[in-house]
Amino acid sequence: MTKPIIFLQKEFRTEFIDKIQAIAPNYQIKTDITAEDLSAVEISVGWTKQFSEQLLASDQLKWVQSISAGVDYLPLKEFSDQNILLSNGSGIHALSISEHIIGILLSYYRGLNQSIKNQERKIWDQGAISYDQLAGKNLLVVGTGHIGQQLSKSIHSLGVNVYGINTTGHSVDGFVETYSIKNMAKIVPEMDIVVGILPGTHETYHIFNSDIFEKMKKSAVFINVGRGDTVHTRELITALEKKNFAFAALDVFEEEPLPKENPLWNFDNVLITPHISGLTVDFQNKFMKIFLTNLKSYVADKELSVNQVELDRGY
Amino acid sequence: MTKPIIFLQKEFRTEFIDKIQAIAPNYQIKTDITAEDLSAVEISVGWTKQFSEQLLASDQLKWVQSISAGVDYLPLKEFSDQNILLSNGSGIHALSISEHIIGILLSYYRGLNQSIKNQERKIWDQGAISYDQLAGKNLLVVGTGHIGQQLSKSIHSLGVNVYGINTTGHSVDGFVETYSIKNMAKIVPEMDIVVGILPGTHETYHIFNSDIFEKMKKSAVFINVGRGDTVHTRELITALEKKNFAFAALDVFEEEPLPKENPLWNFDNVLITPHISGLTVDFQNKFMKIFLTNLKSYVADKELSVNQVELDRGY
Repeated sequence: MTKPIIFLQKEFRTEFIDKIQAIAPNYQIKTDITAEDLSAVEISVGWTKQFSEQLLASDQLKWVQSISAGVDYLPLKEFSDQNILLSNGSGIHALSISEHIIGILLSYYRGLNQSIKNQERKIWDQGAISYDQLAGKNLLVVGTGHIGQQLSKSIHSLGVNVYGINTTGHSVDGFVETYSIKNMAKIVPEMDIVVGILPGTHETYHIFNSDIFEKMKKSAVFINVGRGDTVHTRELITALEKKNFAFAALDVFEEEPLPKENPLWNFDNVLITPHISGLTVDFQNKFMKIFLTNLKSYVADKELSVNQVELDRGY
Repeated sequence: MTKPIIFLQKEFRTEFIDKIQAIAPNYQIKTDITAEDLSAVEISVGWTKQFSEQLLASDQLKWVQSISAGVDYLPLKEFSDQNILLSNGSGIHALSISEHIIGILLSYYRGLNQSIKNQERKIWDQGAISYDQLAGKNLLVVGTGHIGQQLSKSIHSLGVNVYGINTTGHSVDGFVETYSIKNMAKIVPEMDIVVGILPGTHETYHIFNSDIFEKMKKSAVFINVGRGDTVHTRELITALEKKNFAFAALDVFEEEPLPKENPLWNFDNVLITPHISGLTVDFQNKFMKIFLTNLKSYVADKELSVNQVELDRGY
């Protein structure tokens, strides 16, 4: 009988292939795959459209380990119907995204964005640089998962007061206070910084809309590193035109790449980054910590010990 | 007899004028001054070329409270000869400069500088963005005074290992290890980041020169927020041309404003800021904490209790 297959939809270093084989000696490990092999895949590391249909058509697929934290692009209903386990890459990107957010805030408050633009024109103009202080600010983390908690820990040590939003408003270590997502609009007026780190779900769709933007401080900063469609793009553009708040930094968008004709490109007080906040050095090590931990428990008793996604909830 | 004068060479808010008067009721406080008044100035807050000669010609001047941290532009020898006390503004700018440095590092490591340039051309190109991680880096703080200590505290909490350089190599809280300035070249090859926060003195002149640059890691970052002439500008340019290290961020220069023809403007891997790292919100409050503390002790017994400059040492 053919050994079941662990299909790696991304290249990993030999040292990790060896570790996988040591933990799961009764499996074949494949990175390149044939049509025939696909029907024998039991575990898929990563998920791409290219193989989606065939993997779902087979009754051998039992577990998908996603590389990303967000899993809204996966066929969750089919996984649920076919009892396929799903685990995500949540946590891998937490430190990178936290550093990205702090970098954005400090480069904005310290006038570095303006300095970079002036340097391109060889302009030395201290008077043109506006500046502020990060320490002492109130920051609202919308989404208190791995990334939100890492951000809270790091930025609190820089003197920032960190508040949180999650589904139920349950308290989380490291946050001054937490509120439920339904009460977000009530706390937003007190905040200097609002950071979206939400997964894409039915509940979070367009949650950052004019109701929120209109309640923000005129001096406030809005950052989105979660899913693009948590932001109502048209209402964000209106809010920027009306100067509801002072500065936005956006790493994710409803349409990516952001189309050239999108007005967001043109605002002086908007920073566009091309979905880079999660790019992380030493990715393979960080990812394999999660996958190998799950592989051990899966081989032992067909269960996942970390990062399992609740398929009906979507994260 | 005319009351002695406290001359404020910068405007301060009424609340602070009132506090000064309350502590020193036997003094007149002047912001606008006549030629005649100058000879009655006992305390000068701030120091400008405009009044330098006349203030030194009078035998009434006893104490200068500098607004800046660096005092290399003041006539230290004359102060010493005439037994004029000098105190500086060291500490006021520590938090701002620390935030500025962390902002520079994170915006560099997270590819924000490149994103800003790409945004101006509406370019979405994840592949063009290089990224790295701040956490885990080794940082050398050259100058372990107020600013260096604030930086050490803040950036250590972001996972950075902080080493220090000072005159004698004496140990300072919050630094993994400290070395004397004479041994700087020995530790530089181990460092990912070298930050100059030195005052301008005979000993620090051109201390960042080819001997140091050539010993840096190819991937290293050099930041100068101290005095411009601690850097040998010509040798820095050569080092950048030879790619001795990866990135420089310069806030201070031997000649300011940096002349348009200076090649430093043109390097893609150099960030020029126009001497802004010390710009600080709430400046008057921070400054007055120092001045009013000293004013109390001066009125009581003609001594300064904080931030006194040793005139022969220059800081």
